[in-house]
Parts: sequence; structure tokens; C-alpha cells
Amino acid sequence: MEQLKIGITHGYTNGVSYEVILKAFENPTMLELCTPIVYGSPKLATYHRKAMELGTNFSTIQHAGEALKEKLNIIECFKEEVKVDLGQQTEEADKAQACSREAGLHDAKNGLISALVGAPGDKLEPSAELTVLINEFMKVAILTDQMPLNEVTSYVTEENLTKKLRMFDRCLRRDFGLTRPRIAVLALNPEPGKEEKDVLEPLIKKIADEQICALGPFTAEQFFASQAYTYYDGILAMYYDQGAAPLHLSGSEYCIALQTGENIIKTVPLQDASLNIAGRGEAPTASFCNAIYTAIDVYRNRVHFDEACKDPLPKLFHDKREDGRREESKRPQKPE
Amino acid sequence: MEQLKIGITHGYTNGVSYEVILKAFENPTMLELCTPIVYGSPKLATYHRKAMELGTNFSTIQHAGEALKEKLNIIECFKEEVKVDLGQQTEEADKAQACSREAGLHDAKNGLISALVGAPGDKLEPSAELTVLINEFMKVAILTDQMPLNEVTSYVTEENLTKKLRMFDRCLRRDFGLTRPRIAVLALNPEPGKEEKDVLEPLIKKIADEQICALGPFTAEQFFASQAYTYYDGILAMYYDQGAAPLHLSGSEYCIALQTGENIIKTVPLQDASLNIAGRGEAPTASFCNAIYTAIDVYRNRVHFDEACKDPLPKLFHDKREDGRREESKRPQKPE
Repeated sequence: MEQLKIGITHGYTNGVSYEVILKAFENPTMLELCTPIVYGSPKLATYHRKAMELGTNFSTIQHAGEALKEKLNIIECFKEEVKVDLGQQTEEADKAQACSREAGLHDAKNGLISALVGAPGDKLEPSAELTVLINEFMKVAILTDQMPLNEVTSYVTEENLTKKLRMFDRCLRRDFGLTRPRIAVLALNPEPGKEEKDVLEPLIKKIADEQICALGPFTAEQFFASQAYTYYDGILAMYYDQGAAPLHLSGSEYCIALQTGENIIKTVPLQDASLNIAGRGEAPTASFCNAIYTAIDVYRNRVHFDEACKDPLPKLFHDKREDGRREESKRPQKPE
Repeated sequence: MEQLKIGITHGYTNGVSYEVILKAFENPTMLELCTPIVYGSPKLATYHRKAMELGTNFSTIQHAGEALKEKLNIIECFKEEVKVDLGQQTEEADKAQACSREAGLHDAKNGLISALVGAPGDKLEPSAELTVLINEFMKVAILTDQMPLNEVTSYVTEENLTKKLRMFDRCLRRDFGLTRPRIAVLALNPEPGKEEKDVLEPLIKKIADEQICALGPFTAEQFFASQAYTYYDGILAMYYDQGAAPLHLSGSEYCIALQTGENIIKTVPLQDASLNIAGRGEAPTASFCNAIYTAIDVYRNRVHFDEACKDPLPKLFHDKREDGRREESKRPQKPE
């Protein structure tokens, strides 16, 4: 298998981001998995390496095409000096983070890297078409991303839900290789109310016609209390905190977000800049490493899925959509 | 110590409620802790006892005054026959549940019992002044109880927050015996926005003048991800699911709600009717038992607190409020 180039944005540089990147690629196995290219600053990397006495080596390169295999590559994406104020929020660090994200996104859009991975402190991209929060036990797509709570209810419409469920179903099939994903739809309200009855229930029935297996709506409290979440391939949450808080508490070693859109694959560890422990060498790397694994898996699954869809067997499969999505023919099916 | 009379509403009678009540009071220690009085039906109790071959005995009584010590007492609160349809939702069961709640609330209001405890399937009282969700690790008051999500944002006002924080602070002191409770206030939005800046931040500063130690606002995701919740005596959540879903996933053996108002103490296990396992004898009793322990503790703490506030020492303490709340005099204080 060809080694993929994975772009890494350097997160919040006064926090634990370089520590986590350097610690993750101290492990030679990580360098066998992919060719990492950090959009950042060799000077900042050197500062953090010294501060925490880390052994990781890296090569400074000018653009993604120069990346060396089995090395941690760092592209200098700004020339200005950036002062490190460990544990502080500064304008310089904000700017350094923005430069890195811009450079990484540019190369991802131009196909110079296969996927993009954020470092701790990186925020979610507001422009992503689909945001899925992931840990060992669940995959939670968020209908309204990080929208203010006040705008959530009016966004819960048949149109928006249909669009999101189609994207999520396709993501589970194409990005995760699931053949007939079962999606649990969470309720908006703590007790069944207007939106559940008028929007969610009819929509869930209707979308079955598209061979999308959505079930619910389930009250969030009982859904998580009863561990029902372990029975579904995916969960559609109505708003961010409905999915994010339970995700962090369900006992998984890691929590990440997968964001997709316009042929871009981006993953981000759901781990803040951790300013309170910056420079101590204590930051966990599990979420960042899993963000890398997931980015690689999703890229490979997509290649495989798209390949398989090119020439479907004429009798069993037929393309129904312009986007080339593979649909199984409509034979009467038993519920799984 | 005098044994308290604890009223028990019989929950959803086609589910696991009688099973849980009977199993809990099979244990003689539970009967030493309190005198339980079930507002329900001896016939229904007999049905469930037979169905699951449980050994618990009970006495049928006519009103709370007749309750026998060291016995499970059951008051027949309706004369109609109620058919048990295990695992089904029926009108008869709805009605039986409503009768029980009405009878229990009536006796609680009239002081015939010290506190009221719900059985699985019982819903929260919408009229409660304060609802606090509780497990081993946290106490979460809900600003908007079970309000539909659409109404939540407009309820986040200085006035409503002040009122709720005062009640919650008093609850932590009076009901749980904490001397200077620290309360974490959760943010409304997934990312700091309008309500955080314009309402929550100024309110938290202002309320410090009343010796209420509120901190925040904290983004729910990072608050639960970082286990910050273990550092606070109480948490104020803006809406129900923000507190309830994390509560169930934080690894506690039990989850209950305490509801207070007009001198009434009510606790409810956060456990639904569990229709899917009705009649199997598999329902856990931990939440119900802890609802009883908490009801007893809260009643005793209140008695103790009110006693202690009657004659405060003149120089160290003085009453500042009409409600007789004890306030320590304003000496310069170090943060804890």
C-alpha cells in the first residue's frame, strides 16, 4: 500500500499541540503508517522539543512535494517570529494557528496531501458539509454543527434533516465501509413535543423509501442511559452538546471529529489547547493518534468504495444518483 | 432517631415499578431505615410478587396514620380493577399512575409523610421549584427543567438565573449540609456567544455579592471532557439534556432527581418504566434505593439546618434575609 501524505495543522502553539505532535511521531510505527507534513514552524517545534526534552527529529521542507518518507516533515508557513507564551492566549498564537489552517486547507484542496489532521486546540471548520464526532463506541453526526442554541429548533426541518441523513448514511457506507448502516435519530426535546411529532417522526418514516435505515426519535437521556447507543452504526444528534458531552463521558480513550466536504477529509482530536498543562509533557496523545488513523482509514475506504462503484454488476446493483452512489436494487428486505 | 414515613408512588405499573419496590424492601435493612407507604394497589403488588416469585410481605392500610413499622405498607388508592399488561402502555396504567401521584402529593402536602419517592416510570413533577439531578459524582440543577428546547434561550435571563442560583445555593446548604458550596455554571452555547457574554458572565460576577460562589460559564463539552465536574459541589445546567445525558454516562451506579418546593421533598429514580424487561426480575434497584436514602438525608439535613438557624450566635452570624437564611458576616475571605 502506498504511504499517504497526511497534513497536520499545528493547533494552538501556546498549548500542548507541538508536544502532542512530537510525542506521537517519536514512535517509529507512526512514521510507517503515513508521511506526516506539519504546516507550522520549525522554530516552534524546536522550542517545544527543548522545553520538554523530547527526542523526535524532523526535517524542514518548503512544500508538500518535498516531504520525506519515515520523517516528520515541517513546512514553515510563516516567516514572522512567533513568541511562545506557554499557557497563555496571545494574538501571535491565534495568528500562527490561522496561518497553519489556511496553508493546510490550501494543499488539501489541491490534492497535495490525502487528508488533514488538526492538533490539540484546533477548532472545527465551520464550512464542513458534515461533522461526525467519533470515539470507540459511537459515531455522532451533528445536524447543526456548532450553531448557537437559539437557532437550533428552526433548523430542524424536513429538508435539512433529509440532506444530513443522506450525507451521514453515505459517509457511513463510503468512509467507514458499512453496508447497511442503522442510524439512531435523537429527539430535540427532553420530552416528546412538537418537533418530534411534526418533523422527526414523519421524516424517519419517509426516508426509509431511500433505503436509509433511520430509527427514532429517541429521547437523549434514555438513549444514553440505556446504552442503546451501542446498537447503532451512527447517531444523528440535533445539536452539538447533545452529542459531544456524552461522547466524552462514555469511557473511550479518544474522542475526535471527522469533517468532510468537497473531497476533503479532515479529522481533529476533540481536545482543547490544554493551556493549564502546557509545557509539562503530560498531554495525552490518544485522540491525536486516532485522528490520524481515522483520516487514513477514511481515505482508503473512499478509494475502495469508489473503485467498487465504478462498474457495478448490472443485475444486482444500479446507479440511481448523479453522484454515482451505489444502491442495492429494491428487493423486499427483512429488517436486520 | 425517629423513623421517617416515606411515601412511595407506584410508578408505571406495566413496567418494573412494583418489581423494584418489592425487591428493595425484601432487604430488612431498608425497613429499618424508614417506614415505607406505597400509594398504590395491594392487588397489583400481589400480581407482580407472584409473577416474579418474590418473597416480600406487605400490609394493606387505609391511610398513612395506620402505617406499621418494619413493614412495607400499601394504601389502596383506587377501587377500580387495574389489568396488568406487562410491557404495554395502557390507559389503565396511565390512570393508576396518576391516582398514585395525586394521593402521595396530597399526604405530603398535609405532612402525613416526611418525603415522597417515585418508582421507576414516574415522571418529574412540572410544578417543582427546583429540580436537581444527582449521582455519585455530581448534583446538577436544571435552569429550565424539561422545557422544550425552543423556549430555553429566552429563559436565560438575569432574573431567572438569579432566582435559580439562590434556590440551588440554599438547597446545597440546607438539604446537603454544605457550608460554602461552589457552583459551576454551564454555558448555553457550544462556543461562547451572545448569552454567555451578555447574561451569564455579568450575572456570575454580580451574584458573588450575595456570597454565592458561582463560577463559569463553562462550555459543556470541555467541562465534562476534563472531568472538571468533580471539583464542584453543584452544577447549574441551562437545559435538561445538557445535564441528564452526561449524568447517566459518568459511571455512577445510580441517577436520581431531587425535586423541592413548598416544603415538599420528592426524589425520583431517573429510570424509565423499562417496559422491555417488565416481569423478568432483572430491573436494577440502585437508583430507587438511592432515591430513598436521599429523601431521608434531605429531610434530616433540613431539620438540622433549620434548628441551627433558629438562634445564631450574635457576633459571628446575623440574619440578612426574611427567609431566615444564615449568612456569615463579611470578613475578608481567602478563595478556597
